[in-house]
Amino acid sequence: MPTPKAASSRTPDATRRSERSRRAIYDAALALVVEVGYARTTVEGIASRAGVGKQTIYRWWPSKSAVLLDAYLDLTGQAGQEAQAGREGGEEPTEPTEPIGPAGPTAPAGLPDTGDLAADLKAVLRATVDELNDPRFEAPTRALTAEGVIDPELGARFVERLLEPQLQLYVRRLAAARDAGLLRPGADLRVAVELLVGPLTHRWLMRTRPLTHAYADELVDHVLQGIAPR
Amino acid sequence: MPTPKAASSRTPDATRRSERSRRAIYDAALALVVEVGYARTTVEGIASRAGVGKQTIYRWWPSKSAVLLDAYLDLTGQAGQEAQAGREGGEEPTEPTEPIGPAGPTAPAGLPDTGDLAADLKAVLRATVDELNDPRFEAPTRALTAEGVIDPELGARFVERLLEPQLQLYVRRLAAARDAGLLRPGADLRVAVELLVGPLTHRWLMRTRPLTHAYADELVDHVLQGIAPR
Repeated sequence: MPTPKAASSRTPDATRRSERSRRAIYDAALALVVEVGYARTTVEGIASRAGVGKQTIYRWWPSKSAVLLDAYLDLTGQAGQEAQAGREGGEEPTEPTEPIGPAGPTAPAGLPDTGDLAADLKAVLRATVDELNDPRFEAPTRALTAEGVIDPELGARFVERLLEPQLQLYVRRLAAARDAGLLRPGADLRVAVELLVGPLTHRWLMRTRPLTHAYADELVDHVLQGIAPR
Repeated sequence: MPTPKAASSRTPDATRRSERSRRAIYDAALALVVEVGYARTTVEGIASRAGVGKQTIYRWWPSKSAVLLDAYLDLTGQAGQEAQAGREGGEEPTEPTEPIGPAGPTAPAGLPDTGDLAADLKAVLRATVDELNDPRFEAPTRALTAEGVIDPELGARFVERLLEPQLQLYVRRLAAARDAGLLRPGADLRVAVELLVGPLTHRWLMRTRPLTHAYADELVDHVLQGIAPR
């Protein structure tokens, strides 16, 4: 039996409208920061491009940096979900897409643990390489990373909400391997993680050399050698 | 016997004036890029702050990016000379100041080679840590690095003129050690250098944790372990 229209349709419609606005705002925010840079991106500009009123944005976010941060987290979260769906539902198993840097999808589920630490880390870093080379991510990631480099407050929020949780996923995966006796007991896992993520990010940010799967593999091999049991 | 004033003083005076203008232009350029960012720094603004005509700048440099690059190279070169003077002339031996990243003095003389590779690399990386933590360098380095992250052309010029020559100094120092049988013959020295410089730069750029001498030492120990003879 259909429910009466007047009673039921209002909330779903409002939710749909809100969701449409939110999506338009995110798209506009990311497009603008890529096109004109962080400094010239304004809440007014985002509102105008998204076709919403400025007050709609201020109802949900206190500042442009808050909108941009949520828009970017949404973008990286989408990539994480796509990768997850690929892993779980696809006919061919795809590589897990997990993150580093203020670059890359959030991965609340943790890094893969097949028991083969080197293979797991390589899969994760290769996926990160693919993402950093994907224009959909590259441009906004560069724009926001650059702003975080000069604006300590924005940088700290990115680190807190995106980078640090991701680094901790690596630390946990390495800790599991260490507890299984696969790594030297006293190895500093935090430094090991920075040795994986740091050079990859540096090469990408500075564009010193191409960012390839082979490079990701080399980093993993090198770092694991440094913390292998003696 | 004093040389006649009229015949000798003109060229030195002109040279002094030029040198004074150049210094004022460099100082103005670096101060502006820190205060208002790269995008809002203009040749007009630099000229006005330096107290010179815009044409004086255009006589010597084709663009603001060229002025800024030279100003920054001059700043890092000064630091290199100060460190060199400290090494050669001071009563107490000071640590060599050598560079990484688009951060740090140029070091045309090569890295120190005392025969103790770990000690030499630690001295260099510790000096880099000190420099990255020195506000005189930190602010312009952040401003220009951030712009290089989003502007591929500017980034490429910095890499070509500053970062890559520095990375090659590390590669050469490691190659000398490898040739002396202190490193594994097949070790990829370029990747080893990125493993030293990448994490240090990443930690500094993202401000994830304090940049300390202890961290520099840990990186060196880790990386040398990975490329030690088996």
